[in-house]
Amino acid sequence: MIDKVKLTGHFTLPAQKGMDEEVKMLIEKWGVDAIRDSDGTALSPEILSMGPDIYSTICLIRVDQEWAKAHPDQCQQKFLMSFPITAEQDGELIIPIQKGYSREQFRIDAIHDPKKYWEVIDRTTGGVVPVDQWEFDEKHEDVIIQTAKKRHVYTVNFLVFQIWETTSMYNYITNNWSGEHQMGVDPHQPETGVHLLDYLDGWLKDHPQTDYVRFTSMMYQFPLIKGENRETLYLDWSGYLDAMSALALDQFEQKFGYRLRSEDIVDQGYYCSTDRVPKKPYQDWMTFTQEFVRDYTKQCVNKVHDAGKKAILFFCDHWIGTEPYLDGFDELGFDGIVGPCLSGVELRRISDVPGEMIKEVRLYPYFFEVNLQDEPVFKGNGVPVKECKKWWKGVRRALLRNCVDRIGFGGYLDLAIKYPDFLEYVGVLANEFRTVLDRTKKTKPYVISKKVAVLDCWGKARSWMHNDNWPKGHVPEFLSGFGADVVFINFDDIRQNGIPDDIGVIVNWGSADSAWSGGLHWKGPIILESIRDWVAHGGGFIGVDAPTAHEYQGRYFQLSNVLGVEKEIGHRAAWSKNICPSVETKHFILEDVTDKIDLNVAASSVHINSPDSELLAGAPDAVHLSTHSYGKGRAVYFSDYLLSAQNMRLLHRAILWASNLENELHKWFTSNIHTDCAFYPEVEEFIVMNNYEQDKETTIYSGDGKSSNISLGPMEMKWFKLTELNEILK
Amino acid sequence: MIDKVKLTGHFTLPAQKGMDEEVKMLIEKWGVDAIRDSDGTALSPEILSMGPDIYSTICLIRVDQEWAKAHPDQCQQKFLMSFPITAEQDGELIIPIQKGYSREQFRIDAIHDPKKYWEVIDRTTGGVVPVDQWEFDEKHEDVIIQTAKKRHVYTVNFLVFQIWETTSMYNYITNNWSGEHQMGVDPHQPETGVHLLDYLDGWLKDHPQTDYVRFTSMMYQFPLIKGENRETLYLDWSGYLDAMSALALDQFEQKFGYRLRSEDIVDQGYYCSTDRVPKKPYQDWMTFTQEFVRDYTKQCVNKVHDAGKKAILFFCDHWIGTEPYLDGFDELGFDGIVGPCLSGVELRRISDVPGEMIKEVRLYPYFFEVNLQDEPVFKGNGVPVKECKKWWKGVRRALLRNCVDRIGFGGYLDLAIKYPDFLEYVGVLANEFRTVLDRTKKTKPYVISKKVAVLDCWGKARSWMHNDNWPKGHVPEFLSGFGADVVFINFDDIRQNGIPDDIGVIVNWGSADSAWSGGLHWKGPIILESIRDWVAHGGGFIGVDAPTAHEYQGRYFQLSNVLGVEKEIGHRAAWSKNICPSVETKHFILEDVTDKIDLNVAASSVHINSPDSELLAGAPDAVHLSTHSYGKGRAVYFSDYLLSAQNMRLLHRAILWASNLENELHKWFTSNIHTDCAFYPEVEEFIVMNNYEQDKETTIYSGDGKSSNISLGPMEMKWFKLTELNEILK
Repeated sequence: MIDKVKLTGHFTLPAQKGMDEEVKMLIEKWGVDAIRDSDGTALSPEILSMGPDIYSTICLIRVDQEWAKAHPDQCQQKFLMSFPITAEQDGELIIPIQKGYSREQFRIDAIHDPKKYWEVIDRTTGGVVPVDQWEFDEKHEDVIIQTAKKRHVYTVNFLVFQIWETTSMYNYITNNWSGEHQMGVDPHQPETGVHLLDYLDGWLKDHPQTDYVRFTSMMYQFPLIKGENRETLYLDWSGYLDAMSALALDQFEQKFGYRLRSEDIVDQGYYCSTDRVPKKPYQDWMTFTQEFVRDYTKQCVNKVHDAGKKAILFFCDHWIGTEPYLDGFDELGFDGIVGPCLSGVELRRISDVPGEMIKEVRLYPYFFEVNLQDEPVFKGNGVPVKECKKWWKGVRRALLRNCVDRIGFGGYLDLAIKYPDFLEYVGVLANEFRTVLDRTKKTKPYVISKKVAVLDCWGKARSWMHNDNWPKGHVPEFLSGFGADVVFINFDDIRQNGIPDDIGVIVNWGSADSAWSGGLHWKGPIILESIRDWVAHGGGFIGVDAPTAHEYQGRYFQLSNVLGVEKEIGHRAAWSKNICPSVETKHFILEDVTDKIDLNVAASSVHINSPDSELLAGAPDAVHLSTHSYGKGRAVYFSDYLLSAQNMRLLHRAILWASNLENELHKWFTSNIHTDCAFYPEVEEFIVMNNYEQDKETTIYSGDGKSSNISLGPMEMKWFKLTELNEILK
Repeated sequence: MIDKVKLTGHFTLPAQKGMDEEVKMLIEKWGVDAIRDSDGTALSPEILSMGPDIYSTICLIRVDQEWAKAHPDQCQQKFLMSFPITAEQDGELIIPIQKGYSREQFRIDAIHDPKKYWEVIDRTTGGVVPVDQWEFDEKHEDVIIQTAKKRHVYTVNFLVFQIWETTSMYNYITNNWSGEHQMGVDPHQPETGVHLLDYLDGWLKDHPQTDYVRFTSMMYQFPLIKGENRETLYLDWSGYLDAMSALALDQFEQKFGYRLRSEDIVDQGYYCSTDRVPKKPYQDWMTFTQEFVRDYTKQCVNKVHDAGKKAILFFCDHWIGTEPYLDGFDELGFDGIVGPCLSGVELRRISDVPGEMIKEVRLYPYFFEVNLQDEPVFKGNGVPVKECKKWWKGVRRALLRNCVDRIGFGGYLDLAIKYPDFLEYVGVLANEFRTVLDRTKKTKPYVISKKVAVLDCWGKARSWMHNDNWPKGHVPEFLSGFGADVVFINFDDIRQNGIPDDIGVIVNWGSADSAWSGGLHWKGPIILESIRDWVAHGGGFIGVDAPTAHEYQGRYFQLSNVLGVEKEIGHRAAWSKNICPSVETKHFILEDVTDKIDLNVAASSVHINSPDSELLAGAPDAVHLSTHSYGKGRAVYFSDYLLSAQNMRLLHRAILWASNLENELHKWFTSNIHTDCAFYPEVEEFIVMNNYEQDKETTIYSGDGKSSNISLGPMEMKWFKLTELNEILK
């Protein structure tokens, strides 16, 4: 992809009409070599004629509002669950089903037979109310149950049309736009599907100067449900709710041989969120959606290629069904993938995408007045350079592990242009990025000899897609910049393939009975057998929060025999917590600890339950950090985790210790916890980097244990050729 | 029972051989009118001849050690679950079943066929290992499984004889005794049953001077399981494990028509602790035990009466099966009941026992060197008078609500006699107690017009038997001194009888899925229908911690629609917590708050989920205290609770508010949160009491809203006749 790394280029700028001079200036200052239009802006003929690559954005599902208006029955759909209502008497209960939900965003689907597609559920018993015992009053938008039971709680799962397309709505609300609401149509509807492909043909013809077509994205957005006052009710960055339609339900039945219930999607109101342990029907629904989306996407990409242009996927917004970590993503033919990126996790989410293609990240801050936390950035007392540094620090750390091809920004240039110190800093940042590219040639850095496996219900499909403590960062944020190969596995991977030999440690974390810790998957023997056996033979296991948690057969942590700790949830209250080791102060994991260990634990009810456990922080009946040996293997338990320099080193050492790789600590290592380093054997380049905004001293270690003391300026990235390095090592 | 209240008497002293002069002195100073022997002491002829009533203690099950030695197969039994062991390979697994458990306390029962009574369970699958796949190696005390599966965890439920009687063991260990261990025999064994009744006949003849026979208690102790190093592994003050025997299992089958499994008692190693939601087989086992114990107890009591003496039950130690709150307790014929008492709850546990009998409490500190927390009291730097005041304060508060007939102390007089200030203080305390008796004549104080109902799985049978935060106190400790009638109900009470009209508020608390909050009982309609309906018609509901918690149909707090709050356990993480009221500072419940509200909440994940909720403390997504209206009724949620003067007033007001009885606040009320008051209409007496060790001012209110300012000295109890009071009220 990258023919020649140069210290200019690899930078995409959001241009804006009427700012030609500013754009020219930034082409120089930032090394801009590609220009994109943002949603709601368009490029001027003058900029188009300036030479850089032109990225043009298209969002097919809302590109033709006339079509949408003419075909309201082909808008996208969704199941909603009406807010629970309690019957105050036996008999008739009137449920205003849309109450609480946005009327701007949703319109009840009165076209498709409610009795066929909807369900009315008694949430006090879990029973479905028979269809002959309720009616839909279309005029009043009520469901009327004739046989409600007094004091039972009822909900209705009902289909709606989404009459305000989600991304459009988000931008509209965030930027206080006025004017018409855009609708999103569903390409799954055959007529619309054909129309949009035709439209794309025309659009490609109308954009002769466009080099790259950026799809934002293909069809279905992750669900974002708004309430009556435009407040966000529900948001799941990986959810599949928005691919719904009456048509899809019917087709699903033909394909999978059973009918999907509304409740399979509504899921008691949890809406199958990514935090929930996924069940078979929902997984089938995902597969069904993926198959359609991919097929249609391939047709779109082919058209782009046929027009002599390249196709890029924006890995955000309407990305559902085109997950780049699902097998076969590279077969879709995309030439590149772009994603928003404010952390190491988000960097790796793009850079680790399998397949040869341009990987590009959109850095933060977006040139919007406020940030994602709604704090001022490009307005009032906002300090965009500070905001930028804050995120870049984490991104940069991950960049050393797997670099992307391009960076860029998004938003409105007229906002950014008013902050000269920001313009300067982005120039520095761009050169830091290009230096990584230039020095490393995108070769792979040295990693420890074993892999780190993250185990949850999603595995590879949701690689680098954990939102734990976003944007503050959690375990995956640490991993994004850690010098080890990281793989994401799910429980079926273990059931089918066991645990590969090249894995050094399995990490499992999350709240109890969630998709992240695994819930029900910890009940039943195969997973437990496999992991116990693998650890006993020398494997490592790191648990954070409620690892392996599922109350069964007298245990809460199902791998408590491996972890050496157990959580008290009130059932073993009559049992004394008798194993009371004192807190170890000497341990390989603790050797860089200088401050009191603070893992963000509010109250731990985890206790030591093996005489072989070592308590590293907390108390025997309120463990914060502990270790345990199991056969030849080792386990570490963290009762919570939050990023800090000290905690990152704790986890770094915990991984090495659990993997039985303590002897690899001082290989390509930097001693100061505020610094990171990487060595690229293929190009014989070494970098040591200061993550702190003050000078730092550190000792660096080469692969053969030689060392040298180094001084680093604030946030400095210091590169050495191996030959240079050898001169100072002793 | 009490013919004449006098300012002397009502006091039981533990006497000791060779301390006749001291006993005489205390008869004067403390008003002693009864003398008891303690375990391990006996009374001298001189004291016996001094006139006071004589209490003599008998513990039938260990009174004849010769018999025990001659009949080791008639010792008490228990099921133990071997500590979980993981098979490291397929095939043979050897489980040393008693490992981890005390060999002083238990001996494996090799007499009764293990294949009939024991179970070997694969805790990884939950499956029972067929009896032909394991053997018991009696010589090595191992169970050998032939067909173990690699990495599965196995346990064995096995029967043991208890070869060291629990109370005896406790005293022996606590007091560093040496000498022979006492065994406890099982009166359920017909031979032993007959023998002990004969023994009792002889004993009664041999104790002509004894007026009261104190049974300590009848047969089966609450379970206390010791480990290899005498450490306490398990302790459940209400458990029924110790009534076990092979014989009982066989008889159970005849009586109930099904065979009890060892696992019904072992319960995955939770041992059916009182914190667990009880299941049918365990409840049947309790019933079975109760029937036998009561029948045998009645025979013992009859013998005492036939000997012209009175019978007293010590409501501690071996009390299992003689719960005084089970229907029919009064039919056993006891003339009195005595219990240890260091709190208001423990006072009410005795004073509320249904039936006409002498109620007596044994106050703290016991005359032992150390207290129950193993801190020095009658030795070293112990300050017994301080210890005594600490507990008396809480006991005294409850005394005003329902007074007992007698107080007393336990332990060894030669320890107490060395502390003159303690001897003085007990004199004061005894007079405070006798003044309550004298003034109130044990009549009932004024209470608010509605009852408080505590709802859990145990109900009436476990009245005042919550050990929440013992000895620091929790909700029931507050209730023990609160001016309302308190009733204890369980879920079956509601299923069968609904909720009586005279209840003002239902209180439900405890950790999730425990016997206290109710767990599975919250699934399914009847309970939910009943409570919702009752609250909607004006009832009150107070939830603390995880009330009504059981994850089902999209809800965690099943009465979240009543409570107006819901707890996030990770399933609704994708849902915004959008209902964000600001913290109310004005509310009836808050009117006496002066300090920051501290309910001992480490981290609350409870959020407001109704727009009608009012947030009184905490944050909308981390509620500490909130209120909600539901129909005509009201609910209050506390995310935790711990006793303090301010928190007691919060709960006091919350009960009135939830019961719609705010207008009753200023009836027989004292304004200062460090004071309590009570009015006894039948005898027209009023008391206001300072719970603080410094002077306090307060305003007292009579039943008709008149008030007066009062000064109280440290810990002062100030009595008024109604006529006196009327003179100062305005």
